[in-house]
Amino acid sequence: MTHLHPDRLFPAAEPAQSIARELYPEVADLPLICPHGHTDPAWFAKNERFSNPAALFLTPDHYVLRMLRSRGLSYDDLGVPRKDGKPVADGRTAWRLFAANYYLFAGTPSKTWIDHSLQWAFGIEEELSSETADSICERIDAALATPELLPRAILDRAKVEVIATTEFALDPLTHHQAMEADGYLGRVRTTYRPDDVCDPIRAGFHDRLHQFGELTGESIGKWDGMINAHRKRREIFRRFGAVATDHGVPTANTADLAPIEKQALLDRVLSGQYGPEDAELFRAQMMTEMAMLAVEDGMVMQLHAGARRNTDPSLLEERGTDLGGDIPSRVNYVDGLQALLSRCGNEPNFRLILFTLDETNYARELAPMAGFWPSLMVGPPWWFHDSPQGIRRYLDQMVESAGFYNLAGFNDDTRALLSIPARHDVWRREVCGFLGRWVGENRLSKSTAHEIARHLSYQAAKDAYKLN
Amino acid sequence: MTHLHPDRLFPAAEPAQSIARELYPEVADLPLICPHGHTDPAWFAKNERFSNPAALFLTPDHYVLRMLRSRGLSYDDLGVPRKDGKPVADGRTAWRLFAANYYLFAGTPSKTWIDHSLQWAFGIEEELSSETADSICERIDAALATPELLPRAILDRAKVEVIATTEFALDPLTHHQAMEADGYLGRVRTTYRPDDVCDPIRAGFHDRLHQFGELTGESIGKWDGMINAHRKRREIFRRFGAVATDHGVPTANTADLAPIEKQALLDRVLSGQYGPEDAELFRAQMMTEMAMLAVEDGMVMQLHAGARRNTDPSLLEERGTDLGGDIPSRVNYVDGLQALLSRCGNEPNFRLILFTLDETNYARELAPMAGFWPSLMVGPPWWFHDSPQGIRRYLDQMVESAGFYNLAGFNDDTRALLSIPARHDVWRREVCGFLGRWVGENRLSKSTAHEIARHLSYQAAKDAYKLN
Amino acid sequence: MTHLHPDRLFPAAEPAQSIARELYPEVADLPLICPHGHTDPAWFAKNERFSNPAALFLTPDHYVLRMLRSRGLSYDDLGVPRKDGKPVADGRTAWRLFAANYYLFAGTPSKTWIDHSLQWAFGIEEELSSETADSICERIDAALATPELLPRAILDRAKVEVIATTEFALDPLTHHQAMEADGYLGRVRTTYRPDDVCDPIRAGFHDRLHQFGELTGESIGKWDGMINAHRKRREIFRRFGAVATDHGVPTANTADLAPIEKQALLDRVLSGQYGPEDAELFRAQMMTEMAMLAVEDGMVMQLHAGARRNTDPSLLEERGTDLGGDIPSRVNYVDGLQALLSRCGNEPNFRLILFTLDETNYARELAPMAGFWPSLMVGPPWWFHDSPQGIRRYLDQMVESAGFYNLAGFNDDTRALLSIPARHDVWRREVCGFLGRWVGENRLSKSTAHEIARHLSYQAAKDAYKLN
Repeated sequence: MTHLHPDRLFPAAEPAQSIARELYPEVADLPLICPHGHTDPAWFAKNERFSNPAALFLTPDHYVLRMLRSRGLSYDDLGVPRKDGKPVADGRTAWRLFAANYYLFAGTPSKTWIDHSLQWAFGIEEELSSETADSICERIDAALATPELLPRAILDRAKVEVIATTEFALDPLTHHQAMEADGYLGRVRTTYRPDDVCDPIRAGFHDRLHQFGELTGESIGKWDGMINAHRKRREIFRRFGAVATDHGVPTANTADLAPIEKQALLDRVLSGQYGPEDAELFRAQMMTEMAMLAVEDGMVMQLHAGARRNTDPSLLEERGTDLGGDIPSRVNYVDGLQALLSRCGNEPNFRLILFTLDETNYARELAPMAGFWPSLMVGPPWWFHDSPQGIRRYLDQMVESAGFYNLAGFNDDTRALLSIPARHDVWRREVCGFLGRWVGENRLSKSTAHEIARHLSYQAAKDAYKLN
Repeated sequence: MTHLHPDRLFPAAEPAQSIARELYPEVADLPLICPHGHTDPAWFAKNERFSNPAALFLTPDHYVLRMLRSRGLSYDDLGVPRKDGKPVADGRTAWRLFAANYYLFAGTPSKTWIDHSLQWAFGIEEELSSETADSICERIDAALATPELLPRAILDRAKVEVIATTEFALDPLTHHQAMEADGYLGRVRTTYRPDDVCDPIRAGFHDRLHQFGELTGESIGKWDGMINAHRKRREIFRRFGAVATDHGVPTANTADLAPIEKQALLDRVLSGQYGPEDAELFRAQMMTEMAMLAVEDGMVMQLHAGARRNTDPSLLEERGTDLGGDIPSRVNYVDGLQALLSRCGNEPNFRLILFTLDETNYARELAPMAGFWPSLMVGPPWWFHDSPQGIRRYLDQMVESAGFYNLAGFNDDTRALLSIPARHDVWRREVCGFLGRWVGENRLSKSTAHEIARHLSYQAAKDAYKLN
Repeated sequence: MTHLHPDRLFPAAEPAQSIARELYPEVADLPLICPHGHTDPAWFAKNERFSNPAALFLTPDHYVLRMLRSRGLSYDDLGVPRKDGKPVADGRTAWRLFAANYYLFAGTPSKTWIDHSLQWAFGIEEELSSETADSICERIDAALATPELLPRAILDRAKVEVIATTEFALDPLTHHQAMEADGYLGRVRTTYRPDDVCDPIRAGFHDRLHQFGELTGESIGKWDGMINAHRKRREIFRRFGAVATDHGVPTANTADLAPIEKQALLDRVLSGQYGPEDAELFRAQMMTEMAMLAVEDGMVMQLHAGARRNTDPSLLEERGTDLGGDIPSRVNYVDGLQALLSRCGNEPNFRLILFTLDETNYARELAPMAGFWPSLMVGPPWWFHDSPQGIRRYLDQMVESAGFYNLAGFNDDTRALLSIPARHDVWRREVCGFLGRWVGENRLSKSTAHEIARHLSYQAAKDAYKLN
C-alpha cells in the first residue's frame, strides 16, 4: 500500500533520499514529547475503552468533518449531534458514508494520519472505501475491546513520555486529581488556558469572572485582585503538572497600560459599558499580565493567535463550536507583541512560544524575532499547516533567520489520540527529508544533521517546555 | 528547440519525471473546457480571418505589451492605439520591435504561450528574434488566410468543447444571438458580468444604471426593482448559454444590510451624495444580492477580487484600459466574505468560485474556506499566477487543506485565442509534474494520480461550472 | 569540510547539478559590483589594518550578535559596548564565547559567510568551536598584520570593481575627499542617504535640518529652499562618486501634495505642532521630491521600506542602534507608490530600485510593477532574505512576471567587508542552481542560461546603477 510505504514523504531523488533514510531510523522510535494538545484527560484518568470507530475517527475530528461537509455531505448524516436533540445518523451509518467518501481525502494530512492510525493501532492496511467500510469497522470495534487499546496502553505503545492536556481557568481538574491520586500525574499534565476569563466577548464571560473570584477568594472587581486570582490558579495548575499556559487570541495585540488605566478598563468591562476596542484592549493587556506572571512563576507561555472562530453562525447555533468553521486570518506579530516584549522580552525566566496560522509571519516576523529575543521561541506549524507541505514551508522559511535552536520542536495539538504517533512520525520524516536535502546540497554536515534530527524530534520540545 | 521539448516543465529528476511522463499522455488530448475567459464573441459569430500577426500576438496582449514597456519601449512604437488618434507604428514595424526584444521574455509564461502557439498553429519552431522576425511574420500572415485558422477551425483543432465569453450587463449579446441563430450557441456561451452596473465609481455608472432600468422595464430607483433588473438580465444571459456570473471587485468585501438600509444606500448613490465608503458598501451589498440570485437561479458565481485597476493615470488617459497597468493587491477573504457566506454559504443550490491575485490567501484562507463551505470552490491561479511556478505554489498551498475535489479545475481567462491550448497544456503538464512528485514520495498511489490528473484536466471544470 | 564543498548550494540531483556546475565557473571569478552597502569609507581612505578578530567578525555583525543573544548570551559577555561606559568582555573572551556557541549558526547564512571568509581570507578550513577558538583567533590576528589583509588589498583580492558606501546628507565626506585626493575615488563611491533630514521623528531632526540649511546656504523654512538644499547636496555627493540615493523608510507611502500644502506641512513640522500622521506625510512627500530630483539629475533612487527599527527599547537605551533589534514588517507597495509613480513613473531619466523585507510583495506587487513601469527595477533579496532559501524564493516569485531583465542584479548591503565575496558567491551559486533547475526542466535553453548567469552576476548591477 502506497500510504504505508517505508520511504513515504522522503525526498524522491538521490542523494537526499538516502540521507533521509539514514537519519530516520535514529529518530523514528524516540519517545514522544507532547507538550501541547487537546486530548481528553478523562481518557487517561478512567482508562476506559473507546466506544466505537465513528466516535474515535469521525465525530470528534473537525478536519474530517469539514472536508466531508465541503463536498455536500450533511452533518446530520455524519452523526454530528445537534443542540436541539433531533436525531442524527448512528455511528455505523455515518462510518459508511465516511468510508464511501474517503477518496476526497487524497493528498490531505487527514488521510496520512488515518491511514497511519489504522495500521499502527489495528494492523489494517486496506484502503478505507465503501467496500472495506464494514470489515474495517468491525475490526476496529473488536480491537477497541482489548486491553491493548485502552488509553494508557496506547500511550505506552506510542512511547508517550509526557502529554499535556489543556484546561480552562475554571476547570475543576477532576481527572488530574484522580491521576494525582493514582500516581499517573506527571506523565499526563494540565495546561492553564485562561481564555474563558480573559476575553470579554465570549458568551458568559461576566458570570465566569465572578466564579473565578469566588473560586480564588479574590476580588475580581480590582485589577490586582483579578491578577491575583490568576496567580493562584496558575499555582493550582502547576500542582497538577502544568509547565505552560496557553492563550488563544484573535490577534497578537498586547498592551502595557498604567495601573489606573487598567482599573478603568476593568470597570468599563464589568459594567458592560464597552465596545470591541475595549474588548481587544482587555485581551491585549491580559497577554502582558500573563507574561508578567510567567516571569514570576516560570511557566512557559504559548500564544496561538489568528483563528477566526465560528465563521458559520448557523452551524454554531445548530451544533456548537469546533466543527470546522474556524478559519485562519492575518496576524501582525511585530506590532502586536511590541508592548509585551518591551516589558518582558529580556527577562531570563520568561519563555514565550509563538504559533501562527499566517505563514507570511514565518520569514518576515517570527524567525527574525525568535533570532533576537532571548525569551522567544517558535512553535511548530499549527493546525492546517501541520502537514508535509506545511512543515516544508515552515522549515524553509524559518531556519535561516531563527536557526534550529530557536524552534520549539514538535507538538501535535490534537484531540485525536490515535493521530499522535502519526503526526510525530510525519514531523520526523519531514525533518529527516529537509536535512537530507540540505546535506545533499552540502549545506550541513551529516553529523550536524544527525544532531539536529534528534534535537527536533525529541529534545527541543523538552527544553522549550522546561520538561527536563 | 528547448521550448518545444516533449518533457518541458516535467520534474527533471527521477522517479518524478517518469511518472509525469506516464500521466501526461492520458490527459494531453482531452477536450478543453474553457468556462471563463475574455475572447471576442465576434470571432466565433462571424468566423472571419484574423487580420495580421501583430493584431493577433502583440497589440491585444497586455502581458506582452507591459513587459516591453517596462524595458523602455514606447507604446507608440509598439502600435498601441492612442485616444487622440495620433499615428502609432504599423503592425509590421511593431512586430519587428517585438521580435528584436523577444529575449526579454526568457522565463516568462508569455514566452511559453507564444512559442507553443507558433508551433501549434503555424508549425513555426524557430525562436522569434530580429533575424526571424520577417519570415515568421510572413508565415503567420499566409496561414491566417487559410480556412484552418479561422476562429471556429481553431476551436475544433484545439478540441474546445465549450468556451465562455464574458459580457457586461448591458451588452446586447448580438454575437450570441447570431450564434443562437446558426446553432453554434452552447459551444460558445456568454457569462453575466454586471460590474458596469454594480460599481458606483466607474465612469458613466449612473447613465448605465438608468439604461439598465429601461432595458428591463424595472424601476432602478427602488432596490427591489434594481435587483429584479438583474434577475431578468440573468435570465436573458442564461438563454444565451450563460452558466455563470463573474464579478471583478477591488476587495472581497460583502455586506448584508436590512432592506431599509439598502434603499437608503441606493438613494445616496443615485443622488450622487456619497463617498468611497458608500461605494464600497454598495459593491459589497451587491455581491450578497448576486449570491442570493444565484441561490434562486443556480448560476455559478465567480469572484475575481484584488486587482488595482489603471494604476498609471497618464496611460489610462492616453490610451485607455487593459494595457498592463493593473496590479494585484492584498485581499482579505475571511472577513470580506463573512456576510455573504453567513447568508448563502450553506445553500445547496449555491456555488461560489474564488480567484485571487494574493497568493497568501491560498493556504491561509482559500483552502480552509473551500474545505469547509459546501458552496465554495477555488478557481485556478489567476493572471500573473497562471504560470508554471504559479501553479506549483497554488497546488503546494491548496491541496492539503482543500483536497483535490474543491478545486474548480482550470480556466484560461484569456483574450488571446491561440494561447488557449498553450495555457491548458501548461496546467496539465504542471498537474502531472505535481502528481509525479507526490507519487515519487509515496504520498499518492499511481492509480489515484491517474484519476486526479484526468479530473483536474477536464472533469473538474465541467463539474464546477455545472456544464454536465 | 562540508561548508567548503565545491558544489555547495547546487541542486543535489541531476541533471540540474551538472548544469549548475557548468554555468558556475563562467561567473565565479567575474569582478564584483557592489552598488549598495554599508562598509566604512575610513577603511578604504586610511587603508589601516583591522584591529582584531572579534572586531572584524563579531562586534559589528548584528546577524551574529542577535543569534547569540537569542539563545541567552549577554551583550556584555559578547563585548558589545555600553552607552554608560561600564566594562564589557574583552575581544578574546568574547571570541571564545562566540566560538563555543558557533553550532547555533547551523543552517544560517551567517555561518556560510563566516566559513567562506575564514577560508577565503585566512585559509582556515577548521570549523570554529571551543577547541579551535584560540588557534583560529591567533591565525586571524597574525594575518591581519600582513599587507594582504589591508582594506584595499582585500578589495583587490575580491576583484571589487566598484563599491558604494552610504552617507547621510550632512556627512562631511571626509574619507571620500581623501580618496579623491589620492585617486582612489571612483572605485569607492558614496551614496546619498538623506534619512537624517527627511524623517521628523528621528531624534535631533530639527537641529539637523537647520544645519542642512546652513551647510547649503538655503532657507529650509521654505519648502523650495529645503528641496534646493537637497539638490545641492546631491550634486556634492555626485562629485564624490555617488550614482545613487538611498531611502530607508518604515512604509512605502508616497504623496504628491500641492505647493501650498507642502509649505503648510513644513510649517507644522518646523513648529513642532504635528503628530505621527504629519510625520508620515512628510516622509511620503519627501519620497516624491527625491524622485523629482532624480528625474532632474539622473541619480538612481533606492527604496528600502519596511524595517521596524529598534523594537527593543531597553537595548536601544543601553547600547544604541543596529544591534539586531530591527524587525521586518508588512509593506504595501501598490498603494504606497501610487503618488510617486503617477508623477515620475514614466520619466525616461528616472530609475527606482525597490527592496522589501516582506516576501509577499515579490509575486503580488514587485514583479508585476517592475514588469510594467519603465522606471522600476527590483533589487535583490534584502537582509534576512539574502540567503540561499531567500534567493530561491525571490527568483521563484519574481522571474515569471518581471522577467530577468527587470532585476537589478546583486548587492551585498553589508557592513562586514569580508562577507562581500562570500555573499556574491552565494548569489552566483544560487543563480546557477536556479538556471540549472529550469534548463533541466527544458524551460530555458542552455545558451540563454549562460547569458542570464553572466548578466545577473555582473552586468545587471552595472546597468541598474548606471555604472557603465
